Amino acid sequence: MAQFTMETDALLVDYNYMENHDPKTRQATDDVGNSTRLNNGGATSHQEGVISATSGSDDEAMLDIAMDGRDDQGLNDDHVQGSTNFLESQDDLPVSSGQYEDFHTIDWLRDIARDRMRHRHIIKNKQDGCIPKIKSAHDAWSGWVCVLLVGVSAGVCAGIIDIGTTWMSDLKQGICLEAFWLNREQCCWSGNATTFDDEGGCSQWYTWSKLFGVSSSKGGSYIIGYLLYIVWALIFGAIAALFVRVFAPYACGSGIPEIKTILSGFIIRGYLGKWTLLVKSVGMMLAVAAGLSLGKEGPFVHVACCCGNIFSYLFPKYGRNEAKKREILSAASAAGVSVAFGAPIGGVLFSLEEVSYYFPLKTLWRSFFCALMAAFVLRSINPFGNDHLVMFYIDYNEPWYIQELIPFILLGALGGIYGWFFIKFNIKWCKYRKTSSLGKYPIIEVLIVVFVTALLSFPNSYTRMNGSELIRLLVQRCGPEDSTELCDYSRNMTNDHPYMGSAIASDGVIRAVWKLALALLFKSLITIFTFGIKVPCGLFIPSMAVGAILGRVMGIGVEQLVMAYPNSPIFTNMCQSRQICTVTPGLYAMVGAAAALGGVTRMTVSLVVIMFELTGGLQYIVPMMAAAMTSKWVGDALGREGIYDAHIALNGYPYLDSKEEFTHQTIAADVMRPRCWRYGLEVRNDPPLCVITQDSMTVDEIEGILKTTEHNGFPVVVSRESQYLVGFVLRRDLNLAIANALKNQEGIVSNSPVYFASHNTHNPHGPLGLKLRKILDLAPITITDHTPMETVVEMFRKLGLRQTLVTHNGRLLGIITKKDVLRHIAQLQNQDPENILFN
Amino acid sequence: MAQFTMETDALLVDYNYMENHDPKTRQATDDVGNSTRLNNGGATSHQEGVISATSGSDDEAMLDIAMDGRDDQGLNDDHVQGSTNFLESQDDLPVSSGQYEDFHTIDWLRDIARDRMRHRHIIKNKQDGCIPKIKSAHDAWSGWVCVLLVGVSAGVCAGIIDIGTTWMSDLKQGICLEAFWLNREQCCWSGNATTFDDEGGCSQWYTWSKLFGVSSSKGGSYIIGYLLYIVWALIFGAIAALFVRVFAPYACGSGIPEIKTILSGFIIRGYLGKWTLLVKSVGMMLAVAAGLSLGKEGPFVHVACCCGNIFSYLFPKYGRNEAKKREILSAASAAGVSVAFGAPIGGVLFSLEEVSYYFPLKTLWRSFFCALMAAFVLRSINPFGNDHLVMFYIDYNEPWYIQELIPFILLGALGGIYGWFFIKFNIKWCKYRKTSSLGKYPIIEVLIVVFVTALLSFPNSYTRMNGSELIRLLVQRCGPEDSTELCDYSRNMTNDHPYMGSAIASDGVIRAVWKLALALLFKSLITIFTFGIKVPCGLFIPSMAVGAILGRVMGIGVEQLVMAYPNSPIFTNMCQSRQICTVTPGLYAMVGAAAALGGVTRMTVSLVVIMFELTGGLQYIVPMMAAAMTSKWVGDALGREGIYDAHIALNGYPYLDSKEEFTHQTIAADVMRPRCWRYGLEVRNDPPLCVITQDSMTVDEIEGILKTTEHNGFPVVVSRESQYLVGFVLRRDLNLAIANALKNQEGIVSNSPVYFASHNTHNPHGPLGLKLRKILDLAPITITDHTPMETVVEMFRKLGLRQTLVTHNGRLLGIITKKDVLRHIAQLQNQDPENILFN
Repeated sequence: MAQFTMETDALLVDYNYMENHDPKTRQATDDVGNSTRLNNGGATSHQEGVISATSGSDDEAMLDIAMDGRDDQGLNDDHVQGSTNFLESQDDLPVSSGQYEDFHTIDWLRDIARDRMRHRHIIKNKQDGCIPKIKSAHDAWSGWVCVLLVGVSAGVCAGIIDIGTTWMSDLKQGICLEAFWLNREQCCWSGNATTFDDEGGCSQWYTWSKLFGVSSSKGGSYIIGYLLYIVWALIFGAIAALFVRVFAPYACGSGIPEIKTILSGFIIRGYLGKWTLLVKSVGMMLAVAAGLSLGKEGPFVHVACCCGNIFSYLFPKYGRNEAKKREILSAASAAGVSVAFGAPIGGVLFSLEEVSYYFPLKTLWRSFFCALMAAFVLRSINPFGNDHLVMFYIDYNEPWYIQELIPFILLGALGGIYGWFFIKFNIKWCKYRKTSSLGKYPIIEVLIVVFVTALLSFPNSYTRMNGSELIRLLVQRCGPEDSTELCDYSRNMTNDHPYMGSAIASDGVIRAVWKLALALLFKSLITIFTFGIKVPCGLFIPSMAVGAILGRVMGIGVEQLVMAYPNSPIFTNMCQSRQICTVTPGLYAMVGAAAALGGVTRMTVSLVVIMFELTGGLQYIVPMMAAAMTSKWVGDALGREGIYDAHIALNGYPYLDSKEEFTHQTIAADVMRPRCWRYGLEVRNDPPLCVITQDSMTVDEIEGILKTTEHNGFPVVVSRESQYLVGFVLRRDLNLAIANALKNQEGIVSNSPVYFASHNTHNPHGPLGLKLRKILDLAPITITDHTPMETVVEMFRKLGLRQTLVTHNGRLLGIITKKDVLRHIAQLQNQDPENILFN
Repeated sequence: MAQFTMETDALLVDYNYMENHDPKTRQATDDVGNSTRLNNGGATSHQEGVISATSGSDDEAMLDIAMDGRDDQGLNDDHVQGSTNFLESQDDLPVSSGQYEDFHTIDWLRDIARDRMRHRHIIKNKQDGCIPKIKSAHDAWSGWVCVLLVGVSAGVCAGIIDIGTTWMSDLKQGICLEAFWLNREQCCWSGNATTFDDEGGCSQWYTWSKLFGVSSSKGGSYIIGYLLYIVWALIFGAIAALFVRVFAPYACGSGIPEIKTILSGFIIRGYLGKWTLLVKSVGMMLAVAAGLSLGKEGPFVHVACCCGNIFSYLFPKYGRNEAKKREILSAASAAGVSVAFGAPIGGVLFSLEEVSYYFPLKTLWRSFFCALMAAFVLRSINPFGNDHLVMFYIDYNEPWYIQELIPFILLGALGGIYGWFFIKFNIKWCKYRKTSSLGKYPIIEVLIVVFVTALLSFPNSYTRMNGSELIRLLVQRCGPEDSTELCDYSRNMTNDHPYMGSAIASDGVIRAVWKLALALLFKSLITIFTFGIKVPCGLFIPSMAVGAILGRVMGIGVEQLVMAYPNSPIFTNMCQSRQICTVTPGLYAMVGAAAALGGVTRMTVSLVVIMFELTGGLQYIVPMMAAAMTSKWVGDALGREGIYDAHIALNGYPYLDSKEEFTHQTIAADVMRPRCWRYGLEVRNDPPLCVITQDSMTVDEIEGILKTTEHNGFPVVVSRESQYLVGFVLRRDLNLAIANALKNQEGIVSNSPVYFASHNTHNPHGPLGLKLRKILDLAPITITDHTPMETVVEMFRKLGLRQTLVTHNGRLLGIITKKDVLRHIAQLQNQDPENILFN
């Protein structure tokens, strides 16, 4: 199938997950979703005897049987039994059994109805003694227990990854001889070192050159260091790429586009499994340690979601219900951002704004709890030894002035332009990778990128250190003890407070600015080629690093401008008496980081709140807001999509964006299939709608339809002539019901009539009729052919539909599936509608 | 009408707003919403000539004419003209003209479709030159400009109210003789006073007793002070009550229940008007100054929403579209909480969690901007002179210990119990007020409450000060300079740091604890009677004050326990060497405040975030979270509803709670009217459904239906026998169309047939037919009779429906309106369904 060209991309279907998955069947289930909404009226229940409660791993069958308790309302004249033992029999099911196929869309309404059913069953049984009472309490608490476990495990994972990353990163440059498991900082602490050499080392810490005894000659030391830096980077990179390739192909990339898609109601089996968790965690450490221009903050979200998925299987309420599971995953993604940035509120808002699709308010509270627990656990682990959750927490409190908003807004605009530039070229490169032979050699690609990165980044001290260290350095202010290049100002030591306020730059600062400019160029280019290679890689840190460099450089520029003209009326309020002016280049770096991150991801509130939690005060929230707003507007003006949406589109995931407004004037009749009905003439290449009549078809005819078509469901109508809609029946249910009836029910032969009607007119002379009303969904969602598509899109988004039936004056005209809607939107946006791959 | 008994309650219909509003017509419009969804297919457009573009204030007509541009899609065979001048003619409309009646529910889908239509019109016209380009830019920016204005004005209002309140509160006790417009603090500053007397006064500040020259005798001074305190309180209370009664009856109460209802899509004219704004602002100052147990934080939300409403009229995009206006109101309510607590993020989350109903993500970003601007402006005004936005900002950083979670959780439970107790008795008292003659004398009630409050609160210094001052006092820690009763500890002055850690309590603390216990009792009782009287009153501050007292007392208890047994193994980690133990009673007060507020309002995330922003660190967020969670769980276990939802139910507002899950098993057929269809027999007291046929009725017959029924709309069916649904037509459109046709169209007589069908079979011998397809909504939302009610409720909530039509096999069976759903829910919850009053 030509359009099925995702082999080399994020999902890595060529590796090992999809080998036994035939794209053809997937493609073929296109017309109709593989499931219909659950009918509460007792009408979807399987017919007694047709599907026995022991029919294997079909937990839907269990459910339907449990639903029969509803029949006492007198709605249904059919006889139903076997409503007990719902929970017991469910416990026997294998845990991994799901009711959806891989790469299919879920039906939210149906899943949520299933959960309410289960809940009612538990409530009803509650009176029956002690054990059901405990079960009921367990059920009520399981959501909280689950998010607690997820939060704690996300915090622990983050702690381990943080510590591991620091250790491996330091390993590239040297080793702690007395205790090799310590990183440089811990090594020096453990030795009670008080003297540090110029690279921050101490007597216990041996750089490789020192270890090999070439520390005396400066040039030799440099070359040994350079070589071993490259060698270690290549080793780390190779291990990471191999791990991903062999054990868990889904562990590559940032994972956020896929998690967005999964949360919007899509099934990707194994994407959140334990192997992915393990390989992603180890791979993240290795990839960061390899010195690649990538971060571990985005992948933290994936790791946390893996934890969420794994723990959800402990609680059948969540593990067995895809819609409910997504509540846990929403909370987990909040925990991921919470530990990545030490920002629990920001995490919740990130989950709400960027990742989640269906976010009931109950989830908000649980997500917050989960995010808070994760942050709390991580703080207890204290991976950086500084009582903060992130490396680049800032705690200064210098004022900013209203005229500084101009450079801040300028930074925002530059961030927006950078974001557009990055997205455009990254997507171009990813498309090239998909279509060229480059995609066939992922490990070689990783090694090339690692080699180039290591080769070019070692000479420049700002690129040699890893991303979060660089950001930490850039956002700091220069205190009295700072003797780094970046803080080499010529201060007037005769002052009372020589370190108060800004100062004229010395040579060190000017040198640093040049090196930073080179680092900016290098980082912004290499990140384009890095994001998308087959190792775990996030782009929060590289984006922020680029922005921070830009911001620091601009901040130093503004500072020097103010120091050059301290008496200018423009700067008069920034300078106190005796020419002490306050410009904080570190703040500019922070604002720049926010701007670049905003430009790349198009986050809004969550970005500002994360920055607020990093800086911890209302004071800097206005500069951040100004930069984030400008960045978003400039970015949106240049290109609509953020990086995650761009990657979703690139991979053809069926993601119906809930943020984009549908502004076109088409109506349902333009989108539904078959297309023929609107003008009263049939379009030849569109096959007619496949329907089943309620009482005039035989078992044979239905079996024929099942054989010749591959739709996942069929509308049932009164008669082929009238086309009045009765309900909707699933292929799977129909298959099962007919097979069972032929096997177990006497008198059912291939020419038996099949009745879906409630009062069927049984012919006493013909063969016995097969009554299938029980498997009929009597409440399919319908719309009229004149319904504007904006309403239809709204219904798909808000109700989480898989398909809707289109009627005209009560007669069935056609069907619209989620894929039809996505194709229609793609068409209207002049994109290739065949790019939408899955159901 | 018997059930229309809200005269004396919050909406105060007896005062002056509703005099010319006949409850009967309101009641009568019950069956069907007064509007149907807008049909994008060009089919709702008014017929050419039937309704001219000059038909007065009917902006819907304008809209429909503008919609005719859609006809080029070839869907419609009728001729339409006059699609120009949409915007121009709209500008002539009076600003106040709306398309909904007072006390009616809006149709979100329709309003949002109207806005998209307007937007498309502007985009289409954009090419036509410079002025349309400016208009388009203005339209694109108007949302941001509007929320900016709202934020700034909310900040300014809050600043004025804060300053006014402090001044008036101080006026009760004394006056600044040199400058009467200064409050005590400013007065003392202005005089450069360095000595303060024991009540915090200074030489410039004259207490009333000092002014009257009785300062020498202690007893006389006290009595004069007491008397003048009561007199001032009565004066303030009387003015506030009179203002509310005479100028703006809607200004009473906290306003949050009504704003929740308005945001859920209900029209209450004048509730957010300029008079309400003015009276509420002044009334708030007076009511707080009167010393009543109420706060101004809740009413800030109402004030901000008034600003939002007023400014939205500057932008037709928002002012003329009720659904779009609610986006501004959501942002405004965020700004209200932002200025109330200095918590912009908390404000946004409050708006999201508690107040708003329909919260698109775009709104999140704007709300945040609005909240931030409001906080920024208020900080610039700096009403408390302490660089903080709230009086009780805390800035200490003492640690807390894990075993302290036990008292924190206990505080949470007590807060939950208090919340339940308060809600239960407050609702009982409000019901008594509604049904007894007490409701007829609102001003006298206010005066009684003021008198009792003043009489009882003056003797106790903790009740004499106003609520936020009390909270500020209780949440502080005791520093070295504190010489208040509450900080009267016996410290070991021989220590190096005598003020480090906790200490044994002296007499002052024990005295303070007794006084606090009395204050607790008094405050918790009087608030029950205060919340609901006819002055502006919020209950954030009184609830928090009760919780803070409880927390402080418990904190002192824990502190003394630890000091008594510093060597106990339980407390060992709390005490460092030399018996310096750290227990911060102020933190307990903060946690208690959060718990009580949580118990009363059942806020969750927003509560914790507000508290986080008040305390400014992740450190105390875990205690807050523990208390808030316990409080919510305990409260929910005792009684489901928060105070706002309880007041909504009390007033019978049609509020379909989006948080409560619908867990019952009923189906649409149980709820729809008429009820007869389900069992095939007609229920006699339910009139049959009133339908119009598409081509077999005459003008006369339709006029008959219009005269004999009072439904707001009618389903149109193929024929009376078949009942196949064609569409839905509004009473108003039908009335207008027929009247116009009879007047202007030649050949239309009373026995002319009316055609709604697209291809009508015109009888050449009969009179000319009236074609009304244009006013027919061809895309009404329909469901089948077997649809579970949980799905129906979901659709009403998420799509913002007013009504839905119920079909069976394509035939129309009945109709379900929002009111039917609400009545059904009330019935299932064993409440009186007749309590739901409005449409």
